[in-house]
Amino acid sequence: MNKLPERIRIKDIARLADVSVGTVDRVLHGRSGVSEASRKRVEEILKQLDYQPNMYASALASNKKYIFCCLLPQHLEGDYWTAVENGISNALRAFSDFHISVKTFYYDPYDYDSFATEANHIIEINPDGVMVAPTIESYTEDFITQLNDKLIPYIYIDSNLKKLPGLAFYGQNSRQSGYFAARMLMLLAAPKEELVIIRKIHQGIVGSNQQENREKGFRKYMQEFHPNCKIYELDLDADSDDADAKMIDEFMNQHPDIKSGITFNSKAYIIGEYLQSRGIKDFNLIGYDLLMRNVSCLREGSISFLIAQQPEMQGYSGIKALCDFLIFKKEVKQLNYMPIDLLSIENINYYSSVSFADMK
Amino acid sequence: MNKLPERIRIKDIARLADVSVGTVDRVLHGRSGVSEASRKRVEEILKQLDYQPNMYASALASNKKYIFCCLLPQHLEGDYWTAVENGISNALRAFSDFHISVKTFYYDPYDYDSFATEANHIIEINPDGVMVAPTIESYTEDFITQLNDKLIPYIYIDSNLKKLPGLAFYGQNSRQSGYFAARMLMLLAAPKEELVIIRKIHQGIVGSNQQENREKGFRKYMQEFHPNCKIYELDLDADSDDADAKMIDEFMNQHPDIKSGITFNSKAYIIGEYLQSRGIKDFNLIGYDLLMRNVSCLREGSISFLIAQQPEMQGYSGIKALCDFLIFKKEVKQLNYMPIDLLSIENINYYSSVSFADMK
Repeated sequence: MNKLPERIRIKDIARLADVSVGTVDRVLHGRSGVSEASRKRVEEILKQLDYQPNMYASALASNKKYIFCCLLPQHLEGDYWTAVENGISNALRAFSDFHISVKTFYYDPYDYDSFATEANHIIEINPDGVMVAPTIESYTEDFITQLNDKLIPYIYIDSNLKKLPGLAFYGQNSRQSGYFAARMLMLLAAPKEELVIIRKIHQGIVGSNQQENREKGFRKYMQEFHPNCKIYELDLDADSDDADAKMIDEFMNQHPDIKSGITFNSKAYIIGEYLQSRGIKDFNLIGYDLLMRNVSCLREGSISFLIAQQPEMQGYSGIKALCDFLIFKKEVKQLNYMPIDLLSIENINYYSSVSFADMK
Repeated sequence: MNKLPERIRIKDIARLADVSVGTVDRVLHGRSGVSEASRKRVEEILKQLDYQPNMYASALASNKKYIFCCLLPQHLEGDYWTAVENGISNALRAFSDFHISVKTFYYDPYDYDSFATEANHIIEINPDGVMVAPTIESYTEDFITQLNDKLIPYIYIDSNLKKLPGLAFYGQNSRQSGYFAARMLMLLAAPKEELVIIRKIHQGIVGSNQQENREKGFRKYMQEFHPNCKIYELDLDADSDDADAKMIDEFMNQHPDIKSGITFNSKAYIIGEYLQSRGIKDFNLIGYDLLMRNVSCLREGSISFLIAQQPEMQGYSGIKALCDFLIFKKEVKQLNYMPIDLLSIENINYYSSVSFADMK
């Protein structure tokens, strides 16, 4: 299987399709003034040759500036969303030749009105493209409807809004991810049939669509394969981290036999660090996302597995999709599920050591 | 964290560093004729501004053609190496603007002299760069020494030759991968302490460095955590696939209690399909690589887990590294371990659905 592709020139295509160079150029740029028969012949030849127009050269020649706005949940440095923002920065660097800029707005994930307020700021800016991590459906819908009215293309990351599809979605299939997590937790827990789900909650709000869907998928697996397993719940207060240890203490004292648990947010380290502080070594814990504190628990053995979802890639791909659509006029794939990656102390060191950021 | 990067021009850098435009240009291109103090000032400014020279524009302007040669094991369509070659094709497409071509040679993995013969063909061509999947050390060394003499840069994929480091290596840490596989297999096997390693062998030759190292890592884990586990070996003949079922039958009849096994090559499907044909459903099997027949066994339940290692990315990254070094004059990272990815029936559908190929 030898491959020796030669540079394809427009005049070669013209010769092969038996049309003029001007006709090839018109087909390539989607302009009118070409007979149906000629268009078909040119398109066939282009397909046969797997022709790639030189997108860089033409985009570099343009001076148009592109302003993108992102709407993400508020977070502290080192939280899950920091990784998404790193991906955005990488994309900005990767496409720095093409005059793009990004302005990011942050909403309180436990306050829906805050989402609406920040969304309005973005509408006022009237950007060329938008990337949003949705909150609950009704509030997300209001924003998206306005974007549609203004013909602004938008990307979803983290969770999707299927009834108002964006230019693209980048994120995990949360239900399937929870389903997978259940299998892995039961491998660790066997033969015991008892476990606990730990949440962080504020006024009844879990704070993300992802968490809710992961739990649904988890419970689906349990119903199918371990219908007799007792599933306990421990709801910690999202507002007061100080009370966590006391609440976990109480739970553990009441249920000393429970040796397996899972968190569907990115804060498994709360439990992992608790287990370390109490010297508990026989508890099987699964969590999400590679925050430094989570990874540190994984290395210490207080977290058994972490499930990752390539947040940098989500941030990078979202911005890249806007570039592809607006600048390079390339087709963008609509549904882009992230891998459901299992990390343990044995394979974590090799995770994404060749990262997408090297792949420009 | 708002990001509004502006286009940086050479004259801006000159102004900030208080030097001439010519000086900035000399520093950017590593030419002499610049005082140490000026060089330092310019480099500091470049760093502060995170300056990216416009590599596309300058490379596009050049007309130099680059010929790369690859040396890979012989294989059939659909084998592991097909995925590596897909990565090579993707890279060829991605960098098609830059006049690169690839010629691939194939050696018999069970015949070391064949490696030497094909290597000589490559030396005769005198290519601009080489990518090689090494055979055993002594034969690989001969080839590499000749490349070094001719100052031809080379990339290792699949396995590395640490004592003669290449421009870059892309592949899995095979020992750690085997170590990880052991943990996963013992999770499935527990509480039983008995398993079988299945190989394909021709005249005592396993056929790849990777397989040998995976088994070493596997045995290391077993020694550390399950020193009493009985490990059986079943060596199938690499030359006659027809005899496989009979040999597995014999083994299974002799050892009816063994319910867990692993293969370190990419042909776990031999065992998986055997299990299906015999209606055996209580055997835990782990294998490597996402060949279609392996994935089909995973979906049927006759393989429990597959470990993957991004072969497309290896092929893509190797060619990209040659481009980065030769065309874009970019620094290339030397050691690039692939992730150790665990796939089960629950997460396989989401593996690399956003692939590196989308990430150019």
